[in-house]
Amino acid sequence: MLTSNQNNHPKVPEVVVLRLPLYVRELTDMLQSDKNVVSSQQLGERLQMTPAQIRKDLSYFGKFGKQGRGYPISFLVNQLRSVLGLEKEWNCCIIGVGKLGKAVISYTGFNPEGFNIRAAFDDDISLIGQTVGGLYVQPITELEKTIRDKDISIGIVTVPAPNAQKVIDRMVASGLKSILNYAPVGLHIPPGVHIRHVDPLLSLQSMTYYLK
Amino acid sequence: MLTSNQNNHPKVPEVVVLRLPLYVRELTDMLQSDKNVVSSQQLGERLQMTPAQIRKDLSYFGKFGKQGRGYPISFLVNQLRSVLGLEKEWNCCIIGVGKLGKAVISYTGFNPEGFNIRAAFDDDISLIGQTVGGLYVQPITELEKTIRDKDISIGIVTVPAPNAQKVIDRMVASGLKSILNYAPVGLHIPPGVHIRHVDPLLSLQSMTYYLK
Repeated sequence: MLTSNQNNHPKVPEVVVLRLPLYVRELTDMLQSDKNVVSSQQLGERLQMTPAQIRKDLSYFGKFGKQGRGYPISFLVNQLRSVLGLEKEWNCCIIGVGKLGKAVISYTGFNPEGFNIRAAFDDDISLIGQTVGGLYVQPITELEKTIRDKDISIGIVTVPAPNAQKVIDRMVASGLKSILNYAPVGLHIPPGVHIRHVDPLLSLQSMTYYLK
Repeated sequence: MLTSNQNNHPKVPEVVVLRLPLYVRELTDMLQSDKNVVSSQQLGERLQMTPAQIRKDLSYFGKFGKQGRGYPISFLVNQLRSVLGLEKEWNCCIIGVGKLGKAVISYTGFNPEGFNIRAAFDDDISLIGQTVGGLYVQPITELEKTIRDKDISIGIVTVPAPNAQKVIDRMVASGLKSILNYAPVGLHIPPGVHIRHVDPLLSLQSMTYYLK
């Protein structure tokens, strides 16, 4: 679906990259137990994948275990975190500080994982200058400068659907290459930019196929 | 990632099914313009996919256009909506009526698309019996009977992560085959059940790969 033209493993299909965070989460859960090693069979059962698929996915990134011995969990999770860049902190900005934007700003799941919302923007004059979740709401005209000054690399879009494309064009023009989009609308981005949609409606619509 | 063992086109990969709602959304947008026909090239540009990928995806479901003529938009969108079962209404229940559950219940994007939340459950005695967004909060003990009585086929999980697996086991035991999960946790479901995760953290983690 999306192009991937700037990474260390140029032949990794995006569908594999999309699965890596699931591996990280599952393996991190396993670290809580007293297991040290996991087989592709066991990991497959937990993730509803075949062992062959798991071995193939992981083989893109190196050799993580010896044949028949399973993967050392702690080593594997650290390697995958490194592949995904999760050992670093990432600064984000959010555009759209309405009801949805406020909910995303107050969401407590990002910060502990190293994703920090550092700036908030809106074009509603009644919101600009207010403080939301500790963030001072800025006019969108300050986007480019703020991205540079605060070393922001991820943009979060929480504007209404009709405004989303315009906002994303502006983010892309300001140099952002990763966009998390909450607006329920199809969007067009140039090659080299990655976008993920948080869209529960699309998720529902892809399950009814199996319900008919 | 997920098994697909009950559908009309048994060989369709799940990754294709996941893309169908995106086609429907894009084509529906196009209907607003005065175009009647779209080529796989044009559709590909809008969705950031190759024309070959689009032709292959659509070929699973029949012949939608003549070689070199493009696809008739209105016909194609209706066919895909039918493939996905979107011409019907689907009843959902939600388990977990805390802050997140309340936000999902009040989300206005589901209803116009035929997804109706018909019942709400919680195990918090202080919530049971209250009314949230027009829904009477029921104890989880009434789940199975309510699913039957109200013809519910989709379960929405908005409980805290540590409770999610227990709730999903109960949904599956009650006969639900489609689950939309908002809890940020890995979950285990049996074959034949489909789950989609609404998890912005996983989305962010799959983009940092390209940012390193």
